[in-house]
Amino acid sequence: MADAAPIDVRTSPDRYRHWKLALENGVAYLTMDVNEDGGLRPGYKLKLNSYDLGVDIELADAVQRLRFEHPEIGAVVIRSQRDRIFCSGANINMLGLSSHDHKVNFCKFTNETRLAIEDATDNSGQSYICSINGIAAGGGYELALACDQILLTDDGSSSVSLPELPLLAVLPGTGGLTRLVDKRLVRRDHADFFCTTAEGVRGKRARDWRLVDKLVPPSKLVDETKTFAEEIAAKSDRPKDAKGIALPTIERTIDGDTIRYPHLAVEIDRERRAAHFRISGPTVPAPANAAAVQDQGVAFWPLALARALDDAMMHLRLNETEIGTWVLHSQGDASQVEAYDALLAKEASNWLAREIVLYWKRTLKRLDVSSRSLIALVEPGSCFTGTLLELVLAADRSYMLDGTLEGSNLPEAEVRLTSMNFGPYPMGNGLTRLATRFLAEPKHIDELKDEIGESLDAETTEDLGLVTFTPDDIDWDDEVRLVIEERAGFSPDGLIGMEANLRFAGPETMETKIFARLSAWQNWIFQRPNATGPEGALKLYGTGKQSKYDRKRA
Amino acid sequence: MADAAPIDVRTSPDRYRHWKLALENGVAYLTMDVNEDGGLRPGYKLKLNSYDLGVDIELADAVQRLRFEHPEIGAVVIRSQRDRIFCSGANINMLGLSSHDHKVNFCKFTNETRLAIEDATDNSGQSYICSINGIAAGGGYELALACDQILLTDDGSSSVSLPELPLLAVLPGTGGLTRLVDKRLVRRDHADFFCTTAEGVRGKRARDWRLVDKLVPPSKLVDETKTFAEEIAAKSDRPKDAKGIALPTIERTIDGDTIRYPHLAVEIDRERRAAHFRISGPTVPAPANAAAVQDQGVAFWPLALARALDDAMMHLRLNETEIGTWVLHSQGDASQVEAYDALLAKEASNWLAREIVLYWKRTLKRLDVSSRSLIALVEPGSCFTGTLLELVLAADRSYMLDGTLEGSNLPEAEVRLTSMNFGPYPMGNGLTRLATRFLAEPKHIDELKDEIGESLDAETTEDLGLVTFTPDDIDWDDEVRLVIEERAGFSPDGLIGMEANLRFAGPETMETKIFARLSAWQNWIFQRPNATGPEGALKLYGTGKQSKYDRKRA
Repeated sequence: MADAAPIDVRTSPDRYRHWKLALENGVAYLTMDVNEDGGLRPGYKLKLNSYDLGVDIELADAVQRLRFEHPEIGAVVIRSQRDRIFCSGANINMLGLSSHDHKVNFCKFTNETRLAIEDATDNSGQSYICSINGIAAGGGYELALACDQILLTDDGSSSVSLPELPLLAVLPGTGGLTRLVDKRLVRRDHADFFCTTAEGVRGKRARDWRLVDKLVPPSKLVDETKTFAEEIAAKSDRPKDAKGIALPTIERTIDGDTIRYPHLAVEIDRERRAAHFRISGPTVPAPANAAAVQDQGVAFWPLALARALDDAMMHLRLNETEIGTWVLHSQGDASQVEAYDALLAKEASNWLAREIVLYWKRTLKRLDVSSRSLIALVEPGSCFTGTLLELVLAADRSYMLDGTLEGSNLPEAEVRLTSMNFGPYPMGNGLTRLATRFLAEPKHIDELKDEIGESLDAETTEDLGLVTFTPDDIDWDDEVRLVIEERAGFSPDGLIGMEANLRFAGPETMETKIFARLSAWQNWIFQRPNATGPEGALKLYGTGKQSKYDRKRA
Repeated sequence: MADAAPIDVRTSPDRYRHWKLALENGVAYLTMDVNEDGGLRPGYKLKLNSYDLGVDIELADAVQRLRFEHPEIGAVVIRSQRDRIFCSGANINMLGLSSHDHKVNFCKFTNETRLAIEDATDNSGQSYICSINGIAAGGGYELALACDQILLTDDGSSSVSLPELPLLAVLPGTGGLTRLVDKRLVRRDHADFFCTTAEGVRGKRARDWRLVDKLVPPSKLVDETKTFAEEIAAKSDRPKDAKGIALPTIERTIDGDTIRYPHLAVEIDRERRAAHFRISGPTVPAPANAAAVQDQGVAFWPLALARALDDAMMHLRLNETEIGTWVLHSQGDASQVEAYDALLAKEASNWLAREIVLYWKRTLKRLDVSSRSLIALVEPGSCFTGTLLELVLAADRSYMLDGTLEGSNLPEAEVRLTSMNFGPYPMGNGLTRLATRFLAEPKHIDELKDEIGESLDAETTEDLGLVTFTPDDIDWDDEVRLVIEERAGFSPDGLIGMEANLRFAGPETMETKIFARLSAWQNWIFQRPNATGPEGALKLYGTGKQSKYDRKRA
């Protein structure tokens, strides 16, 4: 599948093939009705409401769109159009046909979508409710686990299950194990039984074991779901009478090895296996208030840039797997970036400003969990201020030019802190990037607060610990070239493992456990012949043949 | 290496081939001087103070022995006998020759030894100091990282390094990445530079970046280390005038598929790929006080049993990798077990009682991280009380027989809680097994405290949530047989991943990060052709040939 046409994550409801979206009384109904023949790639049929990346791309679009386009929606119901089947999870034949990197990419994106669902519930006043009729198996139950409330029909046959291990010799790949014991706090021996029982658990045991929240007689499922969702929606803090902003398809052009968006160009250097992200600062001053932001809609610079970055990262992740290093640059007016940050901070209680900040939070987290080496270059004329400075702090390493470049009239490189560096953009570990960076000196965070708004030159920035190295113009080109070439020479697998272990110091959360622990085990299993070898369970599924496992415990 | 002679972890200082142990003024000096020709297996030479499992088995023995045999020792110095080389880490040729399961076993054991060093420092008043002359590379620096203080010679060439990624395309396998950012709180961009720079870091930068604690001129290293260690030893709470207890070689006999120790027999059922651990309760009443414990020495039942369990687990891990399920049984007098627990609780401030409890803590943790399915069977006549009840709580699943077995006069199965279930045996996540089990109902812990000392029958035990299922005598044999056979049918890899994700709910610590996250990534990398394929970096190391990496990022 790696050599097929590029995957595009841009979509919109009029193009959905697998979901129906309906709105009523403050509640959105996202109804799954997967088109069997609508797979992203040939070679498999999406039977029984099973899904592939294409199905999840539509779900991610809907989750995002409901937040921006529908301030009046306070609850979202996920349900199935089918009789006796909610969702049977990720499509097995698709997994069997997929390359290792596609499987890993697929799991990562679906994980991010589940976390976006939880972010909407926890922070955006859009609470997700899962209404299960029939079978919720594997990824189907994992989708339910991402919802705040799970309603299950009590009809003697509807069930929840995670049959991956007994049927396929792999793990539930979308956070299922972690959410069982860390979100729903299911007892581990119950979880052990549940995850080794292909047919799953239903009725009273499902509720007693905390696998679902509520049992509903089959005849009442539709009505009770509606009543329940409308009650929750009524309690939402979202403004019932505000107007949403439309999210048209993101503009982008791909011209050879350059991908252009408003405010962002990505240039691919295939020889050095690096992609250069060139971010442009705002071209117009920050608007005065939230109402003016609303008028600008997706043209509002921070929103336009977040959308571009998000799309570019997904494009590179899915379609440019050999480009192992992402180099982050910016150019623009630091004072203008600062003014945009000030506006977002001032309007923090406005629903749209909140959404934009939450979107930046998620976009920065997507960067954190991207399996690419991240190098930030703070050059003359750059504008790594506040929100954009988070990109430098997200990088594995950063270089800042001390002084100016000969023959250039660009201003000396500077960075600038804003209040946005001290709270609104926590990493998956729950800490800001600054707090994670300075775990050894928590008091240093207070010293940094005193620098908010200051234009910091290379020497000061290095003293403050905000960048790694500050070469002057004599050394700059060589040092930068060296680090990019060096990165290209290392084993990609080793870098992925190293970066995953160094990026998330400090406390762990359900989220870091999912990306750092669960995903690592799944990646390992995806490499093991017992799962993916020619006689592995994933390959033999549905053939009636039994895998002969290598029995050694590692 | 899998088909070679069984590996025996039992050793003693008179048999050490790689370490010298000397004691002076309350300080132990553990001096590494690896015998090149003393590898555990043929095919590689342990050059430059590099190590294999055999070297680490001796280290683990010394760490354990110092605690029990030497109450007068308050600090331990780890140093090298060699000029200009402290330790060059795990032997690469050994790794290149090893099977996947041996590599994983090796890393797990060395990790446990490093954690035992930290446990001695933190809880036993035996603080570890690393005194580095010359090169501390890879596993050599990871050994230093496990010590509380790292002294480095400032001679312009002595350095610390983690060259695994650039040289070998793998990760430092013994907690190095985690300890860098989570123990020593090294900034992640510094850690990134450090872990990608094969030659490492020395002198002032090593200290400024928190990689070491103290720089010492070469001429003063021996004296300053001595003074420093003696100062630390003087502050230890260990009794300077107490007498240690000797740790003779653990008695064991291997007779076909049965391994016998005092108080433990392990029976291997090869057909079902299960090992039955049959634990015997104490045969004599608990002694009156700590002095009497001291007189009994290693014959003291809790200590003898911990040693037997520890050795049996290591034997099975290293030599019986296809035996994927460990079934835990006990037989004995619950009241006597309770009395031993009461004695250990009463004498908690005595140095030896403390050591025995800490040893049980480590032994139970070794069980937690063993990549085997754990099934506890609470049968008539069993004595899963207090400390032994922890084995049931450590199991992935437990079965308790409700009632008696026909034709047997053994008393009905019971379990009993003691104070030892509520604190002294935290898991790697820092919580007791009960607290981890009942994350959803923290108040339940208080209810359980009210049951301390009660003999709990099957129905009550199930109501209290302490076991998973309670079949009666009609169903017992079938249910037990079924779960063991079912386990044997699943993919070992899938089970390992599932169990690693379900066992450690709740907070994460450096320790759980090492076992759950770092190890998973390392296992994955150990499966990837870029590291271990015929053209992988581990295989080509030292040949002068360059690996051609698959460049896809997963």
